[in-house]
Amino acid sequence: MSRQSMILAGFFFNPQGDHRLSWRHPRAPRHEFLDLDYYRRLASIAEGAKLDAIFIADHLGIWDTYGSGLTHYANPRLEPLSLVSALSAVVKDIGFLVTASTSYTEPFNTARMFASIDHISKGRVGWNVVTSALEEEAVNFGRDSNIDHATRYERANEFLDVVKSLWDSWEDDALVIDRSSGVFATRDHVHALNHHGKHFKVKGPLNVPRPPQGHPVIVQAGSSDAGKELAAAQADLHFAIVRSEQEGLAYRADINDRLAKYGRKAESLKLLPGILPIVASSTSEAQEKQAYLESLMLDEVAVDLLSSWAGTDLSIYPLDGPVPDLPEEASYNGWRTWLAIVRNEANKGLSIRQLARKIANTGSVPLVAGTPRQVADELEHWFVSGAADGFNLMFPLLPEDWENFMTQVVPELQRRGLFRTEYEPGTLRERLGLARPANRFSVR
Amino acid sequence: MSRQSMILAGFFFNPQGDHRLSWRHPRAPRHEFLDLDYYRRLASIAEGAKLDAIFIADHLGIWDTYGSGLTHYANPRLEPLSLVSALSAVVKDIGFLVTASTSYTEPFNTARMFASIDHISKGRVGWNVVTSALEEEAVNFGRDSNIDHATRYERANEFLDVVKSLWDSWEDDALVIDRSSGVFATRDHVHALNHHGKHFKVKGPLNVPRPPQGHPVIVQAGSSDAGKELAAAQADLHFAIVRSEQEGLAYRADINDRLAKYGRKAESLKLLPGILPIVASSTSEAQEKQAYLESLMLDEVAVDLLSSWAGTDLSIYPLDGPVPDLPEEASYNGWRTWLAIVRNEANKGLSIRQLARKIANTGSVPLVAGTPRQVADELEHWFVSGAADGFNLMFPLLPEDWENFMTQVVPELQRRGLFRTEYEPGTLRERLGLARPANRFSVR
Repeated sequence: MSRQSMILAGFFFNPQGDHRLSWRHPRAPRHEFLDLDYYRRLASIAEGAKLDAIFIADHLGIWDTYGSGLTHYANPRLEPLSLVSALSAVVKDIGFLVTASTSYTEPFNTARMFASIDHISKGRVGWNVVTSALEEEAVNFGRDSNIDHATRYERANEFLDVVKSLWDSWEDDALVIDRSSGVFATRDHVHALNHHGKHFKVKGPLNVPRPPQGHPVIVQAGSSDAGKELAAAQADLHFAIVRSEQEGLAYRADINDRLAKYGRKAESLKLLPGILPIVASSTSEAQEKQAYLESLMLDEVAVDLLSSWAGTDLSIYPLDGPVPDLPEEASYNGWRTWLAIVRNEANKGLSIRQLARKIANTGSVPLVAGTPRQVADELEHWFVSGAADGFNLMFPLLPEDWENFMTQVVPELQRRGLFRTEYEPGTLRERLGLARPANRFSVR
Repeated sequence: MSRQSMILAGFFFNPQGDHRLSWRHPRAPRHEFLDLDYYRRLASIAEGAKLDAIFIADHLGIWDTYGSGLTHYANPRLEPLSLVSALSAVVKDIGFLVTASTSYTEPFNTARMFASIDHISKGRVGWNVVTSALEEEAVNFGRDSNIDHATRYERANEFLDVVKSLWDSWEDDALVIDRSSGVFATRDHVHALNHHGKHFKVKGPLNVPRPPQGHPVIVQAGSSDAGKELAAAQADLHFAIVRSEQEGLAYRADINDRLAKYGRKAESLKLLPGILPIVASSTSEAQEKQAYLESLMLDEVAVDLLSSWAGTDLSIYPLDGPVPDLPEEASYNGWRTWLAIVRNEANKGLSIRQLARKIANTGSVPLVAGTPRQVADELEHWFVSGAADGFNLMFPLLPEDWENFMTQVVPELQRRGLFRTEYEPGTLRERLGLARPANRFSVR
């Protein structure tokens, strides 16, 4: 199965946009971030542009590690699985990539939720597998602190094995529903797992028939070594954090080596780097838009965000002094991808304030600002060079930047033959050019 | 807050109908029980009749305790929270009462899911709190066997306390979203729980603002002593299993005594007995319909169902011999409400086959069969006498019996002034005549 055009997913974590204080923008949503209609509009616009999917990130807690979080940060958000299930009823073609944690849910419940939404949406859902790195998440689930990094990933791997087995526990043809004989299901085609591993004991079978996609699309988003390894072992899509086309090519080569270890081909794992596009009628207008957003950032929030990502309280140091030593990644239990980004920037000799504002304003992914043609040029280069199979589009300000991209950049990509102009029939998995997984229980 | 007309909820567990082998009926759904459109149609018909809510029961496993389950029973079903979230996007007025387990989920996740769906549906969701009595559920969640009955209910009580506190953790006015000052939330109006109980340790706050209803409506459905106690302590609606108007009156008096212990008024807990209505143009036609459904029952399934409910494998005894001694309720870890029903019937001297077919065919609740006027008469008696605040309508065959009731019995109840003819504005809670809960963290 192959695919000619790039993959595009519209991403959000904060429904006000990926810039951390975009909620202050005059055209950001206020309380309507709690209304289905707000998301329906985003989804409809993206579906009008024939995007592959909407990608929703998530945390299982609020961010209040440091003082400013509760007051200044847009912490609350709708639970994404319920949101996506509702959206799938009103937006008929686009796919949905949804975050759920392997650290604080049960495999049976998570397998069932995704299987159900896959049936409800007729094969349009994917699961962004995360291990939940925040202390604020751990303390909502009976713990005093975060689970250590290695254990989280070990649990994630076993969790995925159990979930995929549960999805396979009803073979595609198990449901006979023969009224006259009274046979509802062929019992030889329904399988108990009797899984008994280090982290889970699950008998099964699931009480939902096999999802239309076989397995909902699996996304993995962590760029730590353990994250890339999990992606190579288990995922269909990898949301990568790379800062240049060159880095993307190296990243792809690294991923391909890892895939080979698991007997997988390169095309079985699609690489979607995150980018932050700002579309404007001129380069200077794009810069103005970005400068305005940056003016919304508060020093206190910037330093507290940097402290969270660095795993170190930086507010106790002089604001205009140097960044102190940071924790070692190998023994760090937080989000290692972020720590690596902070360390990389800290090595450039910025003050705490400068680094905080830089990181808090731009986040972790490359900014692509310019006219529709300039943005399309950049995406084309990455795609044609093989540095990306597509992109996870992280917009600074919603809904405006989202709408601008869908109505101005996508048509340009379509004109160049780089993106679909109509949805192909079939499931999300099929459109992504991914094979339908064989059933691990099927021996016939 | 009061309410003049009866409460009506359309119930299903098996989407093919409450008769355990209704899936064999020529007019039952086949594979379309996996399609959202099937449920959308049920919901639209019920909304056309101005029903209060759709009530969806659930298990976290399949029923295969005994041999026939996997082959002959309609085990798979969609996960109800995802289903209801999708339905709420396309059906705009009716409420949804949805089952979720306190034994095999985490309070943070369950609180968040219901809070989100309450926002998405604009205040139309309720939670049917169950403790999951089946062995087949326990073994999907790391256990060898079911959690003992007392512990399940103890956990349920603490679970509900935590969930309600999480719903209250953002006060109604906490979200300021003041763009110019950069204050998103008033931190004094957002509360950590720091809950540290016997079963749970949860810091909070939730990452979803307070639900529109304050608390989604709480339903409790177990009629064991512990179940009734949980209802009196925590619930807004009680789905009661009573077999006559007389029994309903006694049940109401018992519940009122329990409510008084918790300082609650009788009207704060609505009693919805389950009934099984069959509507036909004549009594004899109703009997024919019921007889046809009963002809679909298989002896093997009937005995296995009886075995499950009795907590004893009855298939090893002669089919036409007497029912052996049954387990004692006080030490029984399964579903005690069902065991009591089986014991009550077993005392009448039926053979295993007779009892199995009787129980498997009629279930646990009274059958009300007849013309629309006869069915309306029966509901009117129960309602007017105070034996019921309304009914949980369990239809033998879906969608047919559902549609017949909505289009024939409801108009008759409306003519008699016993049921609404238009939806009142407001949330599900308001329509049910229930007060909006005070916020436990609010001291102003």
